[in-house]
Amino acid sequence: MSVTPIREGQPPSLQPMMSLVAEDMNAVNAVILDRMQSKVALIPELAGHLIAGGGKRLRPMLTLASAALLDYPGTRHHKLAAAVEFIHTATLLHDDVVDGSAMRRGKKAANLIWGNPATVLVGDFLFSRAFELMVEDGSLKVLKILSHASAVIAEGEVDQLTAQRRIETSEEEYLAIIGAKTAALFAAACRVSPIVAEASEEAELALEAYGRNLGVAFQLVDDAIDYTSDEDVMGKGLGDDFRDGKMTLPVILAHSRGSDGDRTFWKDAMQGKRVSDDDLAHAVSLMRSTDALADTLEAARSYARRAIDALSIFPDSTARKAMAEAAQFAVARAY
Amino acid sequence: MSVTPIREGQPPSLQPMMSLVAEDMNAVNAVILDRMQSKVALIPELAGHLIAGGGKRLRPMLTLASAALLDYPGTRHHKLAAAVEFIHTATLLHDDVVDGSAMRRGKKAANLIWGNPATVLVGDFLFSRAFELMVEDGSLKVLKILSHASAVIAEGEVDQLTAQRRIETSEEEYLAIIGAKTAALFAAACRVSPIVAEASEEAELALEAYGRNLGVAFQLVDDAIDYTSDEDVMGKGLGDDFRDGKMTLPVILAHSRGSDGDRTFWKDAMQGKRVSDDDLAHAVSLMRSTDALADTLEAARSYARRAIDALSIFPDSTARKAMAEAAQFAVARAY
Repeated sequence: MSVTPIREGQPPSLQPMMSLVAEDMNAVNAVILDRMQSKVALIPELAGHLIAGGGKRLRPMLTLASAALLDYPGTRHHKLAAAVEFIHTATLLHDDVVDGSAMRRGKKAANLIWGNPATVLVGDFLFSRAFELMVEDGSLKVLKILSHASAVIAEGEVDQLTAQRRIETSEEEYLAIIGAKTAALFAAACRVSPIVAEASEEAELALEAYGRNLGVAFQLVDDAIDYTSDEDVMGKGLGDDFRDGKMTLPVILAHSRGSDGDRTFWKDAMQGKRVSDDDLAHAVSLMRSTDALADTLEAARSYARRAIDALSIFPDSTARKAMAEAAQFAVARAY
Repeated sequence: MSVTPIREGQPPSLQPMMSLVAEDMNAVNAVILDRMQSKVALIPELAGHLIAGGGKRLRPMLTLASAALLDYPGTRHHKLAAAVEFIHTATLLHDDVVDGSAMRRGKKAANLIWGNPATVLVGDFLFSRAFELMVEDGSLKVLKILSHASAVIAEGEVDQLTAQRRIETSEEEYLAIIGAKTAALFAAACRVSPIVAEASEEAELALEAYGRNLGVAFQLVDDAIDYTSDEDVMGKGLGDDFRDGKMTLPVILAHSRGSDGDRTFWKDAMQGKRVSDDDLAHAVSLMRSTDALADTLEAARSYARRAIDALSIFPDSTARKAMAEAAQFAVARAY
């Protein structure tokens, strides 16, 4: 994957994209801080724990980078980028309840501090706020894209729940799930900017494709990293997916390529009957011997390449280079 | 409270309003059934449990009755009434998780059958679908009102959570909470119709006031009934609020009017230290001896009266009579 030149002698990074949008991101952060306020003190307290807790702000960054790519001179994308981040934050809060997460972004998960009830409700609040921001912007087309993306995300999350602990889950089912739960918001985040910039439909679809493929690449790598990295890198526990019985691509490949004995191990593990550290180590060794991890990353590389190729309709620019490098980064962080 | 004549010799009922909107409600039910579908089978299964489980469909009914009051000849309100019901259903699903409810509308609560994760996520799905329906309708004004109402509902729910088990909660705080968590959606449900009917701002504000006051009246009566009724009437368990330590008006009044010993009882009870059936019986007897229940209903009557008076700008009609009787019904069902 070397479709576009990357900065010489350095590993791919998000830095160029972050520099590209730094000023806009300050404006977005101001909107986020302003609009997460409420006279109900628990709301900014709980929301702030996650929002101030960092995270890459990747999705709003994509909205901003897409606007930069199109030389959009306005500021409408600031509110919309904040709306995208609020939708994402709401889903993270609900995910914490759904997964019973212990850690999120290197900090104790909100539900462990404030409990499930407050976590669910503050998620609802942020979700509503996201729509209020979009309504203030006033584009029905943007509202359509983001309300649809939100419904698709929820569908993907329920679908993932249905697939959980179900060893028969196929690669196709898995790709449909991550396309919905992760890639739909990446795609929508990118698509918002050509709409407010009144760019061509071709530009809109190209940025949609960039975001969608990038989202799939990120999720594939996340799912691999869950078996290979340590807590410092992930900001959540190594092997969480393993213990939760999440049917991710590394598991699907290792299971389908395994011996009868290996398949019994995977079935038991996904059903929660083998969740010790030794079991996890055994799982990783099976993933390595079957090339399940390598092929998951290979798939991620292919989606990242498609993301980069989707940008080919745009003239070469700093923004295009930064967005291409972000796609390379999506994969490179696994190594 | 006899501002408008009710049908002679019969207790106030929702029947006239139900008859008024019966045909429109069939159309709304068709939208609801159609739009709760998803290729993810668990979604219609879980959503259908609650939606098919009945409930009065009170909020969409208010949208339809308001349209009838204005002689609105179109059909735009059907989708919007369905959106209102989806928002309500989403909050009920999330409430079940928040409260750990055992019963809802006389059936086992969804979270006890499908678990908290699926219940949270299907709520998110319905909430997103509500916005998709509004976007399809295309009125930014309606979107603004309902996205704001959604944020206010979430704020009210978090506020209620903060007040839970906090014996110091004042009547004013309580009224702010139910104004947000309940009355905001009643108000928005009524306000949608004058917008699509392009009625005057005066009509819009009058219907907003009708809905808001009606919502407060309903909630006050619900909060009284929780101490006086039985499971058949409520569709949820008698004394649930008591065991959850919910600071509702009957508790606030009985506590503030009680002796030192009574106050200790209430404090302990709200903190979950006195939750037996005997404790509940004692609570009810204290509420009766301090007139806390009677005065809660008196407050409800006053809000219902304000709801009815808000309709006075409209000419007398079957619709206006039906809406007034609905407000009387809100209170009468306590007896």
